[in-house]
Amino acid sequence: MTQIEAARQNKITREMRIVAKKEEIKPGWLRKKIARGLVVIPANRKHKNLDPIGIGFDLKVKVNANIGTSPTKSNAQTELDKLKIAIGSGADAIMDLSTSKDIDRIRKRIITKCRVPLGTVPLYQAVVEAKSVEKINIALYLDVLEKQAEDGVDFFTIHAGITQKALASVKKRTMKCVSRGGSFLLAWMKCHQEENFLYRHFDKILDLAQKYDITLSLGDGLRPGCIADSTDKAQIEELKILGKLARKARKRGVQVMIEGPGHVPLNEIEENIALEKKYCDNAPFYVLGPLPTDIATGYDHIAGAIGGALAAWKGASFLCYLTSKEHIGLPDIDDVKEGVIVTKIAAHIADIAKGNKEALARNYKMALAREKIDWKEMEKFTVDKEKFLKLRKQEVEKNKKLGKAKYCSMCGPFCVFKTFK
Amino acid sequence: MTQIEAARQNKITREMRIVAKKEEIKPGWLRKKIARGLVVIPANRKHKNLDPIGIGFDLKVKVNANIGTSPTKSNAQTELDKLKIAIGSGADAIMDLSTSKDIDRIRKRIITKCRVPLGTVPLYQAVVEAKSVEKINIALYLDVLEKQAEDGVDFFTIHAGITQKALASVKKRTMKCVSRGGSFLLAWMKCHQEENFLYRHFDKILDLAQKYDITLSLGDGLRPGCIADSTDKAQIEELKILGKLARKARKRGVQVMIEGPGHVPLNEIEENIALEKKYCDNAPFYVLGPLPTDIATGYDHIAGAIGGALAAWKGASFLCYLTSKEHIGLPDIDDVKEGVIVTKIAAHIADIAKGNKEALARNYKMALAREKIDWKEMEKFTVDKEKFLKLRKQEVEKNKKLGKAKYCSMCGPFCVFKTFK
Repeated sequence: MTQIEAARQNKITREMRIVAKKEEIKPGWLRKKIARGLVVIPANRKHKNLDPIGIGFDLKVKVNANIGTSPTKSNAQTELDKLKIAIGSGADAIMDLSTSKDIDRIRKRIITKCRVPLGTVPLYQAVVEAKSVEKINIALYLDVLEKQAEDGVDFFTIHAGITQKALASVKKRTMKCVSRGGSFLLAWMKCHQEENFLYRHFDKILDLAQKYDITLSLGDGLRPGCIADSTDKAQIEELKILGKLARKARKRGVQVMIEGPGHVPLNEIEENIALEKKYCDNAPFYVLGPLPTDIATGYDHIAGAIGGALAAWKGASFLCYLTSKEHIGLPDIDDVKEGVIVTKIAAHIADIAKGNKEALARNYKMALAREKIDWKEMEKFTVDKEKFLKLRKQEVEKNKKLGKAKYCSMCGPFCVFKTFK
Repeated sequence: MTQIEAARQNKITREMRIVAKKEEIKPGWLRKKIARGLVVIPANRKHKNLDPIGIGFDLKVKVNANIGTSPTKSNAQTELDKLKIAIGSGADAIMDLSTSKDIDRIRKRIITKCRVPLGTVPLYQAVVEAKSVEKINIALYLDVLEKQAEDGVDFFTIHAGITQKALASVKKRTMKCVSRGGSFLLAWMKCHQEENFLYRHFDKILDLAQKYDITLSLGDGLRPGCIADSTDKAQIEELKILGKLARKARKRGVQVMIEGPGHVPLNEIEENIALEKKYCDNAPFYVLGPLPTDIATGYDHIAGAIGGALAAWKGASFLCYLTSKEHIGLPDIDDVKEGVIVTKIAAHIADIAKGNKEALARNYKMALAREKIDWKEMEKFTVDKEKFLKLRKQEVEKNKKLGKAKYCSMCGPFCVFKTFK
């Protein structure tokens, strides 16, 4: 039985109990949300070392970090180091997006070290194995799915929503397609003059997902790649199809979430969330950013955090991080750390805005520590202890007086907490 | 005549013409907004090398960078270097918040190099000169004002809104006062058991501001210092008083803007903007952040950009940057650069959301360059050319193939713009 099947039969699974405890909610409440598809617990039965998390309605906002090789930058150890730092920095889930030749080996090594849910885009491996986009077919694709499922992958991005119908709207765009999976499928459809094989054979994908309890993350191959294309016809047509596929999946006992944009101006983010909720029956929304500007190269993790905080406050449940290398290269280890922390801050800001008690309590304790100028106490509640300690150490080393007097170099003896009590 | 006096007499000043050209709006339209106090042009007649800017209603969102020494970190050359990098990175205004002993000398040196509006908090110099908070008095304070006005300072932060009435609400707070100016005044009021001398002698301050056309930035000495105190009685009581003082200022022909919070959760930002507009008759709102979390030490510039983007979209006109050193020390040169750029991104994101044509056109051109994988063209529109070039250079140096093929190491030959056209 999958989590959603168990929930519908009034069964509270081990995973539900763990998630309920983490979120400080009642298992029965969680079970109901899972039964209705409002919360998912991505947990492949084969993922032995998994510490499960819940994603969706009113749970704390979760953050995903993408790692993985590319054809021009491929070193398994580097990716394992990224995995470690991402989880250490608070990533709630990891996606291995490797596209080099040794995908199987890298994934197997990653999963043994990955206690958080692991996701993939199986189409990438299908393309690498087929050696060209045109040669992919459903049999090869299902082989890849089975292989990855056996290894314990917890969620699959499936770009089944791009159909022939969308082609006319895609042609009208400023940037036709910025999704790697989406561009593979569009190229395949153009070459074969056939319907997207993921859409046609969606039932077969569901069979496999149900067998392992793999959560499907329905990919937005047509996410807008620039502000000019935001919330356009191509995007919304695909979203509606994703909604239909999500209903199919839930009917078959498969957990499902929906992937979302992309480049979206701040004033369209709330509308984007509302459309997803409407067309996809409130399935958990997994957004990439959103990026509310196109020009922040080198700072896209920050622009993404601005969009992500607003999106999560308005109802997105899962934020995919961006790194400072977005649009310019594959991130290195430091980029991964910074990307995770900045996105965790966005998620936390949304949790506060939504009134999450744990988030508010942590902020309150930080405020008390700050008023007492108690650096030891502040260290407990700050988002990145390592950076906090480094910065404070620099301060005190430069000026011994600061350490004794407790204040910092911003105001020195004019410290507000010393001036007026 | 001040800008607001000229505007009311249907006169279009040289400064109005310059600002209208920069904003691509009609000078007559701008004049009307200035006459009503919806836009200010901080431009002290004595600031000879000033390139004026407008702040307020429907103009592009502006960014201020704070620089200046502290008693424990004081080097004039460092502050001049910060000034240069802040302006070079796009800061629209600078505040010199020096609190070391040689304030006059530092300010004079800064102003000769400062072609953007320069602001100060004159109370800081008054405290430094009086050698203790208790010894300040209005005569000494007015001397400081006159001296700074003569040097060409364009806007003064005046914490005239903290009154005896607020003391009861302040006592109830988690963090009583986190404004340096505010804490000085509270300490002074407590010591002398008298009303705030800036409030009592506000008319004298107006005389001087009118004489030089110095814009008053009415300071929020009681801005909330943590999420727990956000939008509380102390803050709103002060805001109402600032509104009354703003009306007084405008009546006397003095330009005025209002300073705002501070630590505010995302879900209260829009309300905060609305309250300012209501109580202060839509005076330009100058916000510090807002910071939607207390725990982002080391990343407060990013948390501030998240709050700032939302605030500016909803109607704040002027964003004061935060740096990564906020709450932990005085920023160094790199912190200043990063702080300015991140805040400029927030301002730009708000401009896009508000439909600013120039901002949208820039994003559109970036999108076209990106689809063509034209790195030379992207360089023209990206937010930080220096970082962009550095990152691209690193990519190409690591792998010559990337340079030739034009793509980056994220997808390599699987580049979406090569896969599907």
